[in-house]
Amino acid sequence: MEYSILDKIRKEYKPKLPECLSRDISAVGVEEVNLDTQHPEKAKLKEIMPRTFGKKYVKFVQKPEKINSKPLSVGFVLSGGQAPGGHNVIAGIFDSLKKINPDSRLFGFLGGPQGILDDKVMEITKEIIDDYRNTGGFDLVGSGRTKIETDEEFEKSLQVCKSRKLDALVIIGGDDSNTNAAFLTEYFAAKNENITVIGVPKTIDGDLKTDLIEASFGFDTAAKTYSELIGNVERDSKSAKKYWHFIKLMGRSASHITLECALQTQPNCAVISEEVKSKNQSLQNVIDDIAKIVMQRGNNKENFGVVLIPEGLIEFIPEIGALIKEINKLLGDNEELIASMVGESKKQALWLINNLSPSSSIVFSSLPKFIKEQLLMDRDPHGNVQVSRIETEKLVESMVEKRLLQLKQAGEYKGKFSSMTHFFGYEGRCAFPSNFDADYCYSLGYCATALIAAGLTGYMTSITGLSKPVSEWVPGGVPISLLMTTEERKGKMKPVIKKALVELDGAPFKTFAKNRDEWAIKTSFTYPGAIQYFGPDEVCNKPTITLTLEKGK
Amino acid sequence: MEYSILDKIRKEYKPKLPECLSRDISAVGVEEVNLDTQHPEKAKLKEIMPRTFGKKYVKFVQKPEKINSKPLSVGFVLSGGQAPGGHNVIAGIFDSLKKINPDSRLFGFLGGPQGILDDKVMEITKEIIDDYRNTGGFDLVGSGRTKIETDEEFEKSLQVCKSRKLDALVIIGGDDSNTNAAFLTEYFAAKNENITVIGVPKTIDGDLKTDLIEASFGFDTAAKTYSELIGNVERDSKSAKKYWHFIKLMGRSASHITLECALQTQPNCAVISEEVKSKNQSLQNVIDDIAKIVMQRGNNKENFGVVLIPEGLIEFIPEIGALIKEINKLLGDNEELIASMVGESKKQALWLINNLSPSSSIVFSSLPKFIKEQLLMDRDPHGNVQVSRIETEKLVESMVEKRLLQLKQAGEYKGKFSSMTHFFGYEGRCAFPSNFDADYCYSLGYCATALIAAGLTGYMTSITGLSKPVSEWVPGGVPISLLMTTEERKGKMKPVIKKALVELDGAPFKTFAKNRDEWAIKTSFTYPGAIQYFGPDEVCNKPTITLTLEKGK
Repeated sequence: MEYSILDKIRKEYKPKLPECLSRDISAVGVEEVNLDTQHPEKAKLKEIMPRTFGKKYVKFVQKPEKINSKPLSVGFVLSGGQAPGGHNVIAGIFDSLKKINPDSRLFGFLGGPQGILDDKVMEITKEIIDDYRNTGGFDLVGSGRTKIETDEEFEKSLQVCKSRKLDALVIIGGDDSNTNAAFLTEYFAAKNENITVIGVPKTIDGDLKTDLIEASFGFDTAAKTYSELIGNVERDSKSAKKYWHFIKLMGRSASHITLECALQTQPNCAVISEEVKSKNQSLQNVIDDIAKIVMQRGNNKENFGVVLIPEGLIEFIPEIGALIKEINKLLGDNEELIASMVGESKKQALWLINNLSPSSSIVFSSLPKFIKEQLLMDRDPHGNVQVSRIETEKLVESMVEKRLLQLKQAGEYKGKFSSMTHFFGYEGRCAFPSNFDADYCYSLGYCATALIAAGLTGYMTSITGLSKPVSEWVPGGVPISLLMTTEERKGKMKPVIKKALVELDGAPFKTFAKNRDEWAIKTSFTYPGAIQYFGPDEVCNKPTITLTLEKGK
Repeated sequence: MEYSILDKIRKEYKPKLPECLSRDISAVGVEEVNLDTQHPEKAKLKEIMPRTFGKKYVKFVQKPEKINSKPLSVGFVLSGGQAPGGHNVIAGIFDSLKKINPDSRLFGFLGGPQGILDDKVMEITKEIIDDYRNTGGFDLVGSGRTKIETDEEFEKSLQVCKSRKLDALVIIGGDDSNTNAAFLTEYFAAKNENITVIGVPKTIDGDLKTDLIEASFGFDTAAKTYSELIGNVERDSKSAKKYWHFIKLMGRSASHITLECALQTQPNCAVISEEVKSKNQSLQNVIDDIAKIVMQRGNNKENFGVVLIPEGLIEFIPEIGALIKEINKLLGDNEELIASMVGESKKQALWLINNLSPSSSIVFSSLPKFIKEQLLMDRDPHGNVQVSRIETEKLVESMVEKRLLQLKQAGEYKGKFSSMTHFFGYEGRCAFPSNFDADYCYSLGYCATALIAAGLTGYMTSITGLSKPVSEWVPGGVPISLLMTTEERKGKMKPVIKKALVELDGAPFKTFAKNRDEWAIKTSFTYPGAIQYFGPDEVCNKPTITLTLEKGK
């Protein structure tokens, strides 16, 4: 295996730990904290998860003497999309387990949750983990999107954990994976099995967030990587003065990434899906808003700019969301007929227009041809429209262009419009973790071990005070069930961890909203540059603007 | 104006200078060097450029006492596409001019060469330049693509320079801009005007390169920025194990960027246009080669990988180059007819198929529908096909998919194929310059001043020994005319600076060729990570692999 120089040197980085985890991990115990939170669905959740609901938030405290010295056997799994820092979670678990007792063992399930069901496992040794410290990616053991959610799968998981003699299973994943972790905990408890289940909050989207989970790991690095690129494109735009750049950013459910990037780079426009939905805006409303900015700048001879668009935008627009639902149903109900029209996109489109509801039919007809084709053609294995494959950035670009033409014909727009599109997503999910994510993930690994050593199950690792220096971070654990609410899924009310969307009355959005009119018209770009690992503290160790605004300095 | 933290701190960076420029710039003189180069077209070039051809390469030497102390008035212009480091060239000129005499003045023409013709200018002060040190972009004065190449334009330039009382004009640009600089020099000389013209080699493409111009500035930073992103995508690919990524990279004429990125990241495949042309490969040959790699890996259950494609590939494929030429001619000759078929892409395509030569007609018919549409629709103001807008990465992706389907039907391919495409270009042109580019550009600025102070005209700044530590770099100047050969342009033989293509017998390509079979099948990705400005020397100050292989360590 060959390494880049940064790769080699970065492995030597020693992640910082919160004060209470940095001394003797075998002397770390837990302290229950009474939070004054009345869970609104307490009764319902207690009924569904009788054995695991109702536990308390705990924080770690250093005890006067060693309390944990028993060797532990721990399995872990990486679930879902990659996020920078995953390898450091594993390194943190490994180091802390070995500190508690050198006979402790750590096993990684291969290729995501499917690895548990198939009992495919790799033991992590010092030599192996040393090669992955502070690196991006999930390639040490791989990841996957299989869900463990049926009783059969729970039972299979139990049998595998038992046969491997595991004391604990750590699930590193997003909201869905952690929801399933809660049910797995309940299942293990119902079987009176003494195997601990611990969740670790991962997702670059930043939508696994509560008071006690201030950030999911990976968000910091991914948002900073995208911001680097947006800043570079902004500077290009301001230098060449001839292109509008429409940049789509990853983040299907929530617009946290787009919002953070907007705060970092001060573009001319950033669409926040949650606002579009809350204002019940139509696609045309969104387009008109953008075209107005382009027009104002163009009339001012500034024929360039940058627009940020969240990947999930179209699903948030009520009319488009409804259209996609209808298409999914129509295509599902008429598979053979559709198949008989393969290659004849005009015929398909016509059929669809005739069979959609009148309102959706109008919306569909208003879309550019290439988007119609994408809605019709790119379907997932279940026959559904693949929203992530729809080129929203090109949709917005082409509709803005059309709108500007109208404005030009009306004599209102006097500028020139040339544009290009970008999509930043896969570029950021596997970057080398920033110092923040490297430290945070390593600390989360220690938290997992401390929770396991304390015999706690159904907890998610939690660190608060993240906007402060690492030494002041407050590590602990939060019962996963405490994060849950019930939501309708496939017609049934099911407890889930609700995705944390951008709050329109939160400080990050309000800061953006206060400044955006100025950013729209005046060129106010800021250029964050590449993530730095070695420089001055304020360059290397600053958390996201979102976190700083939400939690203070 | 607001700044990112990196932006603020990076401005404090003091670029390193070659030993001989770092002491007293007013004591720097030149020494002519007799190079044993017999220019093959000496007679012809002497005839065309009687006043400027035949000068000698000079290198700078420190003299025992001050020899330059006269205040100088210098104008400069940024020409063509952005490249990281442009602002440092300006800072280098500014600082060295002021060191020679505080009364020296520096003027930047606005918006590229058009700024000369329109006499639009901005005086650079310490306060202004301090705000742009070590930053990316050309936004201090802007850039543009206007060419100064007719006698009328030369005369206009002369008048502007005279009215501004300039001692010298510095043209910061690529091969075309420097070619025009040579003719401007000749024009000024013919008019007996004592205004010096100096060129500075700029282009991220890396195709302005000779023995004496070891690298054009910006190549280092751009290639490293793309390599960061490719490495991240590779790591994602290796983690998720389910996608092939087809990545198009900027670089229209030469594949230096693709080659450097391949050496930095070791992808499964990198197409080098120069090799395709030299082997006279058809598009289908290129596709078959890629599909074979995908097949071999797929049959080995590795259904993922990364393929790099240079932006200019299709123009290098003889059959496609011929097709584009024919389309340009046909569309040019039949403008009205084509206009009458707007929106009817099928009709247009049919008309084209009937009117192309039989061989081009076959090639056109073989292309996917969306590429046919791009060839027909996206035309530049002169009616030509806009090659840079053609989604070559999608063309390759879709043809590889088609080929794999054939291989699957033939029972040869047993894998699964899912893919996505990327284009990295605008993300890298305005990045904060790497230490290498920051140092190199700042030193080039000093070189420009030293050439001006020495009264030399028609020279390009030259620094050799670039793969060594900065203190050992050898600064000097090379007569632009020495870099020229004659080439047919619009039916006439014209002296030009020939674009330096990838040499198939050069060390960079040979290193790539030696390893690529292994990289194709074994996953050998390397992850360069983000450009670092503050860390250990080997992380921050290493030149490109191309430069190291070409010039030694």
